[in-house]
Amino acid sequence: MKVFVVHAHPEPKSFNGAMTRTAVSTLSAAGHDVKVSDLYQMNWQPISDRRNFKTIKDDDFYKQQLEELHASENEGFADDIRLEHEKLDWCDLLIFQFPLWWFGLPAILKGWVDRVFVMGKIYGGGVWYDEGYFKGKRALCSVTVGGPASSYGVSGINGDIDQILFPINHGILYFVGFDVVRPFIVHGPARMSESERRKKLNDYVSFLLRADSFEIIKYKKLADYGTTFVADQKHE
Amino acid sequence: MKVFVVHAHPEPKSFNGAMTRTAVSTLSAAGHDVKVSDLYQMNWQPISDRRNFKTIKDDDFYKQQLEELHASENEGFADDIRLEHEKLDWCDLLIFQFPLWWFGLPAILKGWVDRVFVMGKIYGGGVWYDEGYFKGKRALCSVTVGGPASSYGVSGINGDIDQILFPINHGILYFVGFDVVRPFIVHGPARMSESERRKKLNDYVSFLLRADSFEIIKYKKLADYGTTFVADQKHE
Repeated sequence: MKVFVVHAHPEPKSFNGAMTRTAVSTLSAAGHDVKVSDLYQMNWQPISDRRNFKTIKDDDFYKQQLEELHASENEGFADDIRLEHEKLDWCDLLIFQFPLWWFGLPAILKGWVDRVFVMGKIYGGGVWYDEGYFKGKRALCSVTVGGPASSYGVSGINGDIDQILFPINHGILYFVGFDVVRPFIVHGPARMSESERRKKLNDYVSFLLRADSFEIIKYKKLADYGTTFVADQKHE
Repeated sequence: MKVFVVHAHPEPKSFNGAMTRTAVSTLSAAGHDVKVSDLYQMNWQPISDRRNFKTIKDDDFYKQQLEELHASENEGFADDIRLEHEKLDWCDLLIFQFPLWWFGLPAILKGWVDRVFVMGKIYGGGVWYDEGYFKGKRALCSVTVGGPASSYGVSGINGDIDQILFPINHGILYFVGFDVVRPFIVHGPARMSESERRKKLNDYVSFLLRADSFEIIKYKKLADYGTTFVADQKHE
C-alpha cells in the first residue's frame, strides 16, 4: 500500500505530530510505503491566485477554473502544486491529519485543497464523485477535536460531527472520487493524561493495521441522480 | 448601522467584487458606515502560528489557545490581527463575501477566522453561542456558488446548502455570538448574461436595504442544553 499523509499542525510536538509519526512508523513497519507533506514544515503557501500557475490563459481577468483547465493542458502548474499531484497520483490511501479548527480544516490545509484539486486534471466534464479522478483510491480524515464526543453528537451543542465533516468528506474527498473512510477522531487530547494519550496512539496503530477492512462511508452514486443532479425521492 | 465586509476573492472584476462594491455604495448611500477588509488586496497572511503574537507564553511548545489567552491578557496580538479586532468591535453587522470553494471558505478567509477569532478576547469560559462575545450583532454570509440551486437542495448531488454552510454559520458565526442572517446566495454568476448579473446585483441592493428585517436562523440556545452540552430530546 502507498500512503500519502498531508499533515497540518504548527507544533511538531503536538498530538497531531505524534499521530503522523505513529502512522509513518506503523505503516512502514508493516511493509507499506509512506510519503508525508508536512504543510507547516514545508512552509506551504495556501492562497490561491496567479502564483498557482506558470501559464496564463487570460491576463486581464483571473478566472481560476479557466486557468486550471489551461494549465492542465499545458503542464502549467507551479512546482509546489505539481509535486503534490505526483504524490496524489502515486498513493493508494490519502490521510488528512489535522486538528478541527473552527469546525473545518486549518487554513493551510484548506489552501492545499484549494490549490491542488484543480479543474481539468482532477475534476470536470463528468469526472466527479464515484466517477471521479481518484476512483479506486481511499481517503481518511484523522482528526483531533477539542471538545468531548457528547457535544459533537446529534444532540450536542456543536452539532453532529458527521454533519460538520460532510463538506470535507463528501464535498472534497468524495467529490474527486475517493472512497471515504469513516474518520478516526480523537477528542480532547490536550486534556488527557500521558497514558490516555498513549492508549489513543495505540488505538490508531490498531486502526491503521486493519486498513484492509476500513469502513467506507456509503454515499449516493451518480447513477442515483437524474440529469438535473437531483435524486429521485419517490423510493426513499 | 456600522457594517464590516470581509471580502475574499482574487479578482477585483469578479462578481464577488461587484457584490462588495454594491454593498459599499448601497449601504453608504443609505447613511450607514462601511469598512471593508479586502483580504487579497491586503495580502492577508492566513497561516496560524507564532506570527499571530507579539507575546510568548511558552517558547518550547506552541499551543495556540494558550498563546491566545496570554496575548488577550497582555495586548499581545500581531498588528494585523489587532486591526481586525478593532473593526469587529466597531461593527453592528459583519458580512463575509466569498465564493464557495470546495464547499467552504477560501483558505484566505478561513485563515482570517483561524487567526482573528481568538480564545480569551473572543470566546472561552462560557462565552459562546447565544452568550457569545458578539451578542447583539448580526452576521451574514453573501456567497457565490458554482452549481445550480437544484444540486444544492436536500436531494441534490452536492448536498443541502444549509448543511454545507452549517460549520460556517453555526460553528463560526453563531459560536462567537452573532445572530446569523439567512445567507444571500447567487448560483452560477459565471454562466449568467450581463443582464442576469445586473438583476442579481439589484436583488442584493433590495436585500441590503431591508437589513432591518433580515431573517435570523433559529438555533438552539445554551439554556436548551444541560451541563454536558447535550440537548434534552424528550420533547423533540
